[in-house]
Amino acid sequence: MTTVMNRRDLEFLLFEWLDVASLTESPHFAEHSPETFTALLELSEDLAETYFAPHNRLGDTDEPRIADDGTVTLPAETGAALAAFAKADLLAAQFDGSVGGMQLPLSVFQACMAFFQAANTATTGYAFLTIAAANLLCAHGSPEQVDAWVRPMLTGETFGTMCLSEPEAGSSLADVTTRATRSADGSYRVVGTKMWISAGDHELGNIVHLVLARTPGAPAGVKGLSLVAVPKYLPDGRRNDVVLMSLNHKTGTRGTTNAVLAFGDGTHAPTPEPGAVGYLVGEERRGLAQMFHMMNEARIGVGLVAAAVGQAGYRKALEYATVRTQGRSLTNRDPASPPVPLTDHPDVRRMLLAQKAYVEGGLALVLRCAMLVDRLRVVEDDQQRRRLGLLLDLLTPIAKSWPSQWCLEANSLAIQVHGGYGYSRDFDVEQHWRDDRLNPIHEGTHGIQALDLLGRKVTADGAFAELTAAIRATVAAAERLDDLQEYAEALDDVLMHLGHVTSLITEPEHATGGLANAALYLEAAGHVVVAWIWLELVVAAHGQEGRFYDGKRAAAQYFFRHELPKVSAPLDLLASHDRTALDLDPRCL
Amino acid sequence: MTTVMNRRDLEFLLFEWLDVASLTESPHFAEHSPETFTALLELSEDLAETYFAPHNRLGDTDEPRIADDGTVTLPAETGAALAAFAKADLLAAQFDGSVGGMQLPLSVFQACMAFFQAANTATTGYAFLTIAAANLLCAHGSPEQVDAWVRPMLTGETFGTMCLSEPEAGSSLADVTTRATRSADGSYRVVGTKMWISAGDHELGNIVHLVLARTPGAPAGVKGLSLVAVPKYLPDGRRNDVVLMSLNHKTGTRGTTNAVLAFGDGTHAPTPEPGAVGYLVGEERRGLAQMFHMMNEARIGVGLVAAAVGQAGYRKALEYATVRTQGRSLTNRDPASPPVPLTDHPDVRRMLLAQKAYVEGGLALVLRCAMLVDRLRVVEDDQQRRRLGLLLDLLTPIAKSWPSQWCLEANSLAIQVHGGYGYSRDFDVEQHWRDDRLNPIHEGTHGIQALDLLGRKVTADGAFAELTAAIRATVAAAERLDDLQEYAEALDDVLMHLGHVTSLITEPEHATGGLANAALYLEAAGHVVVAWIWLELVVAAHGQEGRFYDGKRAAAQYFFRHELPKVSAPLDLLASHDRTALDLDPRCL
Repeated sequence: MTTVMNRRDLEFLLFEWLDVASLTESPHFAEHSPETFTALLELSEDLAETYFAPHNRLGDTDEPRIADDGTVTLPAETGAALAAFAKADLLAAQFDGSVGGMQLPLSVFQACMAFFQAANTATTGYAFLTIAAANLLCAHGSPEQVDAWVRPMLTGETFGTMCLSEPEAGSSLADVTTRATRSADGSYRVVGTKMWISAGDHELGNIVHLVLARTPGAPAGVKGLSLVAVPKYLPDGRRNDVVLMSLNHKTGTRGTTNAVLAFGDGTHAPTPEPGAVGYLVGEERRGLAQMFHMMNEARIGVGLVAAAVGQAGYRKALEYATVRTQGRSLTNRDPASPPVPLTDHPDVRRMLLAQKAYVEGGLALVLRCAMLVDRLRVVEDDQQRRRLGLLLDLLTPIAKSWPSQWCLEANSLAIQVHGGYGYSRDFDVEQHWRDDRLNPIHEGTHGIQALDLLGRKVTADGAFAELTAAIRATVAAAERLDDLQEYAEALDDVLMHLGHVTSLITEPEHATGGLANAALYLEAAGHVVVAWIWLELVVAAHGQEGRFYDGKRAAAQYFFRHELPKVSAPLDLLASHDRTALDLDPRCL
Repeated sequence: MTTVMNRRDLEFLLFEWLDVASLTESPHFAEHSPETFTALLELSEDLAETYFAPHNRLGDTDEPRIADDGTVTLPAETGAALAAFAKADLLAAQFDGSVGGMQLPLSVFQACMAFFQAANTATTGYAFLTIAAANLLCAHGSPEQVDAWVRPMLTGETFGTMCLSEPEAGSSLADVTTRATRSADGSYRVVGTKMWISAGDHELGNIVHLVLARTPGAPAGVKGLSLVAVPKYLPDGRRNDVVLMSLNHKTGTRGTTNAVLAFGDGTHAPTPEPGAVGYLVGEERRGLAQMFHMMNEARIGVGLVAAAVGQAGYRKALEYATVRTQGRSLTNRDPASPPVPLTDHPDVRRMLLAQKAYVEGGLALVLRCAMLVDRLRVVEDDQQRRRLGLLLDLLTPIAKSWPSQWCLEANSLAIQVHGGYGYSRDFDVEQHWRDDRLNPIHEGTHGIQALDLLGRKVTADGAFAELTAAIRATVAAAERLDDLQEYAEALDDVLMHLGHVTSLITEPEHATGGLANAALYLEAAGHVVVAWIWLELVVAAHGQEGRFYDGKRAAAQYFFRHELPKVSAPLDLLASHDRTALDLDPRCL
């Protein structure tokens, strides 16, 4: 059996391309070395294969359910896997030493996470959300809150959630109605219903829910939202008034509980005042900005999930295509000759190469963003920090969306390579496809990411220039290498096209029309960015011999010839200020 | 609640576009009238909504299972629905009066089937396969075989299957190993294992399996295959030696039994000679050609399934987007204003319009092909028949593949429109998406269809010229209509591009390279063909007022502006004789 993630590829990305070793020159990461990074990758691979991969299907078939006593039942393997993850200190890995963390670069940590997400994204979801919650509390919580909640989160005793959506407010956070009222003792009483809460209930430990709520007198819209931490169990051990109303049953990632939670419906009222007891994080009415702190890293994390699940499918399809024989080559009509491996069929090779280009390109993009987070942490020059921040902000919606779209396509191709077997639940690839379908929806839908990119990120002063400069630098490096000039030229051309279209559609008189086609812009910009990433990868691989590097060159060739030319049509459409969707009367549909 | 299929659209396609009424001028269809066609559409809608749609989810959750006595258990609703279908004479509808049929045009019958496939493709699968088997027996079976099996099939007492694949031979029929040996009494004894047999076992009635098998001394490869009918119960009522080995559990279309069947393993041996008793259909070694008779209509039928399931998802997404409110328009920043319906968001309208263009375009393509079958039946001029046959042959792999690819994408967009709700199993769209994922796999995978189109169909003498002539005729009609000239010109240009590329890549020295990228050719040709279909539809709608026709114009505008330009890049790639996949060493993957 193949492993679910290619460690060689991660090492190439981290050490040969991103040069994470250079981070250890800064005081913040000085306690690390390439050897500790490598050891953590090996440990992660081992834990992922031992504790996470084996129950991936079980988590799908034995969905979380509500037992007679109202508690949520999970397979024992889920808890055991998360305990092993915690015991290896991986929950603490990316956090500062001051809170008990390992102070690991995010790029290295995300590479470690890739093993777990590929092995079992549903079980890893509990860790993912806890890390995100701890991250937010570290940034905006008081020292007491950090001590009370972050420390037990990093040891696996307490888990975290993000409670944003409500039954009537999914993408529209402006319409959140959950209320948080300040009590005499300075704590808050929270009343409302939250929907789609991943890891929303379980018996793995205490849970601290980070809840977006509205305080009395707060303005309407997102500016009136505050962030309140609501633990399932209060500091004195009593149950808080957070009640599991029901579990949502999804098409994939079934192993992650997804809950409707009622806050303060009176079932477990801990105080005479109605409401679940909560504690304000930071200041009132700063909730959305604080939540976005978490959301930005979470978006990169979602991109990683998509790429990792895509990779798991790709590797299984590749293994299957290598051992499964079927038919004969196009030029051999002799039925008496033995059947050939599926990889002998060019169309199968094309499907595998497409998967490789999508999943390895997506993974590289995500790690590139994580490396920007790391560099932002260690860079000392303000101007440089500002520039890195602009680039990271611009790339974040792409790092979330591009893998969510194309690694899902990779999962579909992995099914196709398997033929009928791929459609059966005896093979893993159909589950990977269902699991990966979540990623264009949560943490901001594809359409929301598109509005973020075109409506905010590319219009930020200097942001697009930063992207252009970064891509041009790679183009310049590639132009000096004989066999990469074709790609350098193609990327330079399409970058110019993208820049031209960006200017056109962000002009004030065209802005609304442009936003109507923002998804097309997101997708075109994503392909340009991933072409850039592929060019970076083959520049890094230049002069290196062997199959691993030949594979990178083949995938880059696929991307530049088969994929990048796809962007011309949508860019031309955007430049035409097409109003097909904008002007449509929906009553004609 | 919305209905699953748009009857108004089917009536437009049949009467206003295809002019099925003209078929009744021929003796073969003379007993019908537009009124009987309309009555059948209404009946089909009623039966589909009453008997098929209500248990669509039940068929998914209560999968067929093997009971303790070895029989296959299905929900009672499945049998009741099929009984209602049979009672309405729909199993017999497309067959000649001489065998008890209704002698209905295939185009009208497929339109009827669209309701059932949209309502519940898994339950309809049992009827679909029975009709296909009866069709094949009518074409190639003896009068006695027709009497023995086709007549009870048309009344719903007997069901049919196609047994092609084996565990080691899915796409490669040349490697079929099941053996059929002639017995002294002229019947055959069949021994072997067949895999992926849809509707392969159940208790709904007798089952006649149409089995591809190899007779002693037959040559290797597909030329050695014979077609043998193997009933589950013999004419004397005894059990034949066809044994259910296991059920396959799929990601979708779970309600259709999918079986591994052992023929002649001795469990129910009816005769001293080993093997299941079978009866040769037609002559020995003609099995594949005979099976393809069935396969061609089945491929059109698969395209219909894809389009119908896509339509079900589209209509549910449209209804949801109309009633669900969320957020505010892009230009309204006032959070105190009420939320707007999802259809007020241009990106949602774009996703709905894309779905409409895919599912209505796919449906129209399928009905166009069915109409070609009808015209082939009534045309008297040999030359004309030959030309229609060439066009139908060329369109068949596209009619199978294009809806399978793009209506699946429509189903994914239907999930996206629903947001988190779309990912939950409380809504139907995730099931439609899983169900529709089957269609690029069965009845010849996407890659197999591509090889058929490029390797056989477009190279058939005069075939591409027929397509060109048909498209040019539509272009000429559109050029005379002011507001369609833009589309006419665009289609003419891209047709020229397609023709040029077709010549280039079918030149002998490039043929193997071209076949390596056959899937790209299939997809590009598919988009050109569907653009032609959309131009036909707006020509038919020209001068007509009202929202229905405006909707057709909007979808055509979407297709011509957003979709058709996508074909330039793959056509250019094909013209470059790209060898990326062809030359790839799979050990680099």
